[in-house]
Amino acid sequence: MALIVQKYGGSSVADANSIKRVAKRIVETSRAGNHVVVVVSAMGDTTDELQDLANEITPLQDPRELDMLLTAGERISMALLAMAIKSMGSDAVSYTGEQVGIVTDEKHGSAKIQRISADRVREALDNDAIVIVAGFQGTTATGDVTTLGRGGSDTTAVALAAVLHADVCEIYTDVDGVFTADPRQVPLARKINSITSEEMLELAAAGAKVLHLRAVEFARRHGVTIHVRSSFSNQQGTLVFDPEKGYPEGATVEESIVTGIAVDQNDAKITVVGVPDAPGRAAQIFEIVGATNVNVDMIVQNVSANDTKRTDISFTVPMQDGPAVVTALRAAESAIGYESLQFDDQIAKIAVVGAGMRTNAGVATKLFKALFEAGINIEMISTSEIRISVVTRADMVAKAQQVLHTAFELDGADEAVVYAGTGR
Amino acid sequence: MALIVQKYGGSSVADANSIKRVAKRIVETSRAGNHVVVVVSAMGDTTDELQDLANEITPLQDPRELDMLLTAGERISMALLAMAIKSMGSDAVSYTGEQVGIVTDEKHGSAKIQRISADRVREALDNDAIVIVAGFQGTTATGDVTTLGRGGSDTTAVALAAVLHADVCEIYTDVDGVFTADPRQVPLARKINSITSEEMLELAAAGAKVLHLRAVEFARRHGVTIHVRSSFSNQQGTLVFDPEKGYPEGATVEESIVTGIAVDQNDAKITVVGVPDAPGRAAQIFEIVGATNVNVDMIVQNVSANDTKRTDISFTVPMQDGPAVVTALRAAESAIGYESLQFDDQIAKIAVVGAGMRTNAGVATKLFKALFEAGINIEMISTSEIRISVVTRADMVAKAQQVLHTAFELDGADEAVVYAGTGR
Repeated sequence: MALIVQKYGGSSVADANSIKRVAKRIVETSRAGNHVVVVVSAMGDTTDELQDLANEITPLQDPRELDMLLTAGERISMALLAMAIKSMGSDAVSYTGEQVGIVTDEKHGSAKIQRISADRVREALDNDAIVIVAGFQGTTATGDVTTLGRGGSDTTAVALAAVLHADVCEIYTDVDGVFTADPRQVPLARKINSITSEEMLELAAAGAKVLHLRAVEFARRHGVTIHVRSSFSNQQGTLVFDPEKGYPEGATVEESIVTGIAVDQNDAKITVVGVPDAPGRAAQIFEIVGATNVNVDMIVQNVSANDTKRTDISFTVPMQDGPAVVTALRAAESAIGYESLQFDDQIAKIAVVGAGMRTNAGVATKLFKALFEAGINIEMISTSEIRISVVTRADMVAKAQQVLHTAFELDGADEAVVYAGTGR
Repeated sequence: MALIVQKYGGSSVADANSIKRVAKRIVETSRAGNHVVVVVSAMGDTTDELQDLANEITPLQDPRELDMLLTAGERISMALLAMAIKSMGSDAVSYTGEQVGIVTDEKHGSAKIQRISADRVREALDNDAIVIVAGFQGTTATGDVTTLGRGGSDTTAVALAAVLHADVCEIYTDVDGVFTADPRQVPLARKINSITSEEMLELAAAGAKVLHLRAVEFARRHGVTIHVRSSFSNQQGTLVFDPEKGYPEGATVEESIVTGIAVDQNDAKITVVGVPDAPGRAAQIFEIVGATNVNVDMIVQNVSANDTKRTDISFTVPMQDGPAVVTALRAAESAIGYESLQFDDQIAKIAVVGAGMRTNAGVATKLFKALFEAGINIEMISTSEIRISVVTRADMVAKAQQVLHTAFELDGADEAVVYAGTGR
C-alpha cells in the first residue's frame, strides 16, 4: 500500500465546489488503494483578506498575532475538506500544524521547521483515515503558532512526506507541471516529464515559480520525490527526483543538455563606482551589505575605466531590498572611499539549467553566441556546475529567453496550453 | 490591583472600527490599574457565515470538523484585538482555548469545561500583559478542538474568572444590563441594578436572553460576580452576585418582592390523552420521553373529563424537539394504552422571579388575580421557591407580561432605551 502526500494550493480550494472536486480526487486516490495525507492552503484569497483586515487595524502588526490571524485560513479550508470527504463515505480527519507536531523556530512569518512528530498522522493512517493537515503553519516549542512564509504549504507537504517516508509528494497546482520555460512567455515551452532535484533547485533559485525554493531544498535534502501536477486534469505532471536514489516509476532519462530556463525580473543591480583598489575593500562593502540581512546574488568586480587604481563592484539584490542597501552604503561612503553609487532596476536575470552541462563542454559558448547573434548584451555572468546565469537589460529578457529556448533545442511541437485565472 | 475579566460578544467586535473601540476600553481599564483578561467572540456574523460554508459542502457535518471550522472565527477576532491593543502602546497577547488549557469533554458542539489550567494567563498577567482569550472553545484531553455551544463565550469568561479568582466578570453586550422584562416588549421595563445569582438563574432558565444559563450556573457554583453592561456606554449595568458571599461594590439591596419577568415562546405542549389511571403509567411515559434526550419542563396531570378511569398528562418540551417526542410516544401507543396525542405549539411560558417570594405570601394570588382580571387563561402552573411560571396562549403572553410588570410594581418612570441592531 503506497503512501501519497498531496498538496492543494488556494486556487484548487477557492470555493465549496472546488473543495468538493478536490475531495473527489482525494477519495479516488484513497480507493485506488493508497494511504493519503493531504496538505491544504487557505481558500482562494483568504490569506490576503485576513491581511487586509489586519491592515485596517494597524499598519504595524505584531508578528505573533499576525500568525495567529493568518492560520485561521487553513483552519477553514481543512475542516471543510475533511467534511466533504466524509460526506463521500471515506473517513477523514483534519489536523492543525500543532496537532501533527510541526515544531518550528520562533521566527514568526517565516519560521523554519525543526522537527515533526506526526504521531497523530500515523495513528489516523493506521485507522484507514485520510489525513488533512493545515499547510503553512507550525508551533514553537512553547506552543505559539507560527507561519512558514511564502510557499509554506509546499514545505509542509514535502516535510511530511519526508517524515512519513511517503512514496511521492504530489504538489497540485494550476499548471500541468514544470515547463522548459514559462509558457506564458515562451509559447513553445514543453512540459518536463522528469527533472533531478538538483536541477529543480537551480531553476527555483533562478526564479521558476511553480515550486518554492525551500520546498525543493527540503525534498533534495531528504530524498523526497515530488510530482508537480495540475488539479484540473489527470495527466502526469513533472517528477522531481534524486537519480542517485533510483528512478521513480514514470521518470525518464532525458537526453538534453539543458533542462529548462528561468527568468527573474525582481532583482536590481547596485554598482559601487571607484572603490580604491586596496586589499579588504570588497570585504568591507559586503560586510556592510550583509548587516542589512539582504541576500546578494551575483557579484562582478571590474577595473574602473577612468582610473586604474580604482575598481567598480557590482552586485544584484532583490529589488525591494535595494533602498536599504543603498542607505547603508551611503552611510559608509567616507569609510569605504568610493566615488559614487549606481542603482539599476532595469535588469533581468536569465538562467539556463541542466545536469548535462557537467559532461558537455561548450554550453557557455553556445549561450554567448546565441545571445550575441540576437544582439543581446550580457552585463553579468555567474555559473554553477549545472547552471549559467546572465544579466541583461530588462527589455531584452523575453527575446533572450526565446532565443536560448530555441538554441538549446527545448522548443516543443505545439504551443503549451495556459490555463486562465492562474496564480498559486 | 484588581483582576477584571471582560467578555465582548460578536456585535461589539463586528468590524475593524468596533475592534479599535473595544481595544480602547480595554486599554483604559488596564491603565486605571487593573489586570485585564478579555474573552472575545467571533466578529459579527462570522460564525453564521462559516456555518453557511459548511452547509454548502454537506448538510450532515462531522461534529469534530465543524468545531475545527467554527473556532477559526475567534482566532481572527482575538488576533486583531491583540494587534489593536498593542498599537495603542499596551502589551497584549492572544491565546486559543487550548493554549490557556481549557479542557472539555468530547461532546463536540456543546462541550462542557472540565478544567482550566490558565498557567499561560497567569504568566502573561505577571508580565503586565493584557490577555485575550478565544471564547466558545476548548480542547479535549487528547487535543481535539471543541466548542461550548450557544452562549459559550459567556461560559469561557465566567470559568476563567472563577479559576483566576477575578474580582468581577464583566459581560459586555448591546443592552445596558438585565431588565425587569424585555424592554422591546415592555416599554416601561427598568434596568435592574443588582440581582442575586439565584434569581438570575431562574430568569435565564425561564427565557431571559441577556445571560446564558450555563454561564449563570457556573457563576453561581463558583461565586463569580458578573457585571452585565453595555459596550456602547460607560454606565453601570447589572451586578449578578451571591449575597451570602457579601455585597460587591455598587450592589444595592432591592426591596421589591418580584425582581423580573421572563417569557419563553420556544416551547410546545404535548398532551397524552386518556392514559389508563394505573400505577406506573406516568413513569412509563417519561421513560419513553427521557430516552429521546429531550428536556421536559412543566408537567401537569389531570383527571380526564370523559372517563374517570383515565387521566390526561401534559408537558412542555422545546418546540424543535416536539416531533421526536411525538414519534417516540406513537411507537409506544399500544404499550401505554392512551387514546390520543395532542401537540400544541401555540403556547408561551411566563415566569415571575424574585427572592422576596420566599418570605412574602400571596404572590401567587396576586399573579392569578392580575391575569384573571385581564381575561388571560392559565393552562399550566409550576413553581420554585423564588419563581412562579404559567403557560398561556401564545397570543396572550405580551399582554400577560405587561399586566404582571405593572401588578408587581416593576414599571419605571420612563421608557427604556433600546439600541438598534441588537442581538448577541
